[in-house]
Amino acid sequence: MEKNLWQQVQLVRQQSPLVHNITNYVVMNNTANALLAAGASPIMAHAKSEIREMINIAHSVVINIGTLDEYWSESMLMAAETANAIHKPWVLDPVGAGATSFRDQILHQLLQFHPTVIRGNASEIIALAKINTTVTKGVDSTAESNDAVEAAQILVQQYNTIVCISGETDIILSPTQTIQIKNGHSLMTKVTGLGCSASALAGAFIAVAEDKAAGIAAAMSLLGIAGELAVRESKGPGSLQVNLIDKLYNMTEEEFTSHLKIEKS
Amino acid sequence: MEKNLWQQVQLVRQQSPLVHNITNYVVMNNTANALLAAGASPIMAHAKSEIREMINIAHSVVINIGTLDEYWSESMLMAAETANAIHKPWVLDPVGAGATSFRDQILHQLLQFHPTVIRGNASEIIALAKINTTVTKGVDSTAESNDAVEAAQILVQQYNTIVCISGETDIILSPTQTIQIKNGHSLMTKVTGLGCSASALAGAFIAVAEDKAAGIAAAMSLLGIAGELAVRESKGPGSLQVNLIDKLYNMTEEEFTSHLKIEKS
Amino acid sequence: MEKNLWQQVQLVRQQSPLVHNITNYVVMNNTANALLAAGASPIMAHAKSEIREMINIAHSVVINIGTLDEYWSESMLMAAETANAIHKPWVLDPVGAGATSFRDQILHQLLQFHPTVIRGNASEIIALAKINTTVTKGVDSTAESNDAVEAAQILVQQYNTIVCISGETDIILSPTQTIQIKNGHSLMTKVTGLGCSASALAGAFIAVAEDKAAGIAAAMSLLGIAGELAVRESKGPGSLQVNLIDKLYNMTEEEFTSHLKIEKS
Repeated sequence: MEKNLWQQVQLVRQQSPLVHNITNYVVMNNTANALLAAGASPIMAHAKSEIREMINIAHSVVINIGTLDEYWSESMLMAAETANAIHKPWVLDPVGAGATSFRDQILHQLLQFHPTVIRGNASEIIALAKINTTVTKGVDSTAESNDAVEAAQILVQQYNTIVCISGETDIILSPTQTIQIKNGHSLMTKVTGLGCSASALAGAFIAVAEDKAAGIAAAMSLLGIAGELAVRESKGPGSLQVNLIDKLYNMTEEEFTSHLKIEKS
Repeated sequence: MEKNLWQQVQLVRQQSPLVHNITNYVVMNNTANALLAAGASPIMAHAKSEIREMINIAHSVVINIGTLDEYWSESMLMAAETANAIHKPWVLDPVGAGATSFRDQILHQLLQFHPTVIRGNASEIIALAKINTTVTKGVDSTAESNDAVEAAQILVQQYNTIVCISGETDIILSPTQTIQIKNGHSLMTKVTGLGCSASALAGAFIAVAEDKAAGIAAAMSLLGIAGELAVRESKGPGSLQVNLIDKLYNMTEEEFTSHLKIEKS
Repeated sequence: MEKNLWQQVQLVRQQSPLVHNITNYVVMNNTANALLAAGASPIMAHAKSEIREMINIAHSVVINIGTLDEYWSESMLMAAETANAIHKPWVLDPVGAGATSFRDQILHQLLQFHPTVIRGNASEIIALAKINTTVTKGVDSTAESNDAVEAAQILVQQYNTIVCISGETDIILSPTQTIQIKNGHSLMTKVTGLGCSASALAGAFIAVAEDKAAGIAAAMSLLGIAGELAVRESKGPGSLQVNLIDKLYNMTEEEFTSHLKIEKS
């Protein structure tokens, strides 16, 4: 598995997939830099007048609803519909799911276009499962990991998707397997948008990986290990943001395999 | 006073207030990182379909008109109206006041919802007072500090608000007191959006402070001292932006109290 | 020439021109910081309700279509029309030219307002020439430099503009001269938006330079040399982005003239 994950990292560097992002204003710069550092090619565009053409030339799509509004949500729906129709893998990052009824309504519509992957934190995954099921037992808003796993399983089953729950442990659930990644560092939660970078990297990796769940595991461990190593050279979240990009760029196989903490079941 | 201000810094770190920002595209990433580094929790959202719900869950609101347009200005007005109606403290950052009639018209409307604090540079405060008063004596566009103080006093009186004039000396005027903070460094003016970070931090501090003017003084001195200390380790404005976030995060009581330059009258 | 270019760098620092930017979300922060570091004063605003007033107070205008949509493209057209009408120099950065028909249609309209400079990479310049000419011989999509030069010559002739083709070698073509700048470093392509920073700096320099082509050459060499020197202190693209801003700010005449690699014909 370790060897396989490092091969995924190399595949992204070699193939440089074109990743189309409709993401939030806060993280666009960092997301683009994270993709470039990992070897991918970011596109950021959202105009309804061109979104279908853009999706057509991309290898994968990332939809992050962080700063959505009425216009952008229509773009996101067009992008998701197009990606689904022409079989481009796509990632849904349900930022702030459950916070407002507007978000939940757009998320409900987006889910109909079968995201290849859904990546969010425990609360978001729980909120997302609540939107889309009448089975609410065990799915409450306490955001404990076990609840999130149950919520994720509902989403996996209902949409035949892969769910990645980000946290101290990243849990990746597919219809056939569960992978746990225990990399990362708590200081990463003090840098805005690293969850969004995780979703963007997932987009790059599912563009090249045959085994999508393994691709997502590679993306999460790459970011987590880059974060761990970057923290060592950082005085706080400002320098961590910078050093993490450097480390995504110059991570070696030795660094990756010696720090990887993965469990599969 | 020194002890009191440091207590405010600790309050933000302990309570981690949820600060809702409708701010400009240029600074969103830095603003979010400054809030996280100081211990607060940023939200960035602007959709008219959800703005009221978002304000409802936030502890304070920051409205910064930097890159406003027709849609965003309607969001800002909804946010200000909601904040005022449900008694959430809110900050107005009148970026570019006086530059165009559109800005002045939106600012005029925003002022009707009684911002808890207005933070701007001398020119912006002078322009803002001009918009909203027929008393124009002493309020001209030369942007000298004394003129700004007179303009600030007009705004304080007319809207029962607190005004913070940023500059080499930050002057905070409330109906009952005047506080001067002499921290900061001239290199900070070469980093885009540190004024916007000041407004965002003011938002975090008025969410937790009972004495709002003292809270704003704590926010301004925290940013100013972080800037002074960060400059020492910086080779230019690029590294200053990074080091300042680090210093907001790891500032100690000793650093804060030994560098604080405050005068109250 | 070397002496002349350094004088342009000093002119920007002394005159601090007001550069109005309608640019993309991804790079706004970096672009503003690059302009500040070089000594210019950035404005970022796009509202149709104020764009004409803003252009009126600016010394130059930069239009970058990176994340355009229907609203923003109308703003861009108003800005270009105004700049052309009141003789403010303006830069067109045709990001993603040729990628979608929407982009090409907006670019076609923007070109009618005679940009002072067009700055793009080889593929973008080739795509742009294709949009606006029926002479397609030699202008294909292979993006080789020679093809881009031919495409640039067509644009120079047709719009009486200056074209700057960015790449390993920057080629600046005006109706009367060709300048080649061989500064820069390949790691710069791993930082998002340095091309956009190049366009923004071109905007600052044409605001102060009498010889616009020399001004653009100064902007490109300043950025290229800053990049070369910054790479030496960087561990990857994250730290390069930071160090490059520092170096734009503190570049000395000795550093500039000793590293400049320029050829004129």
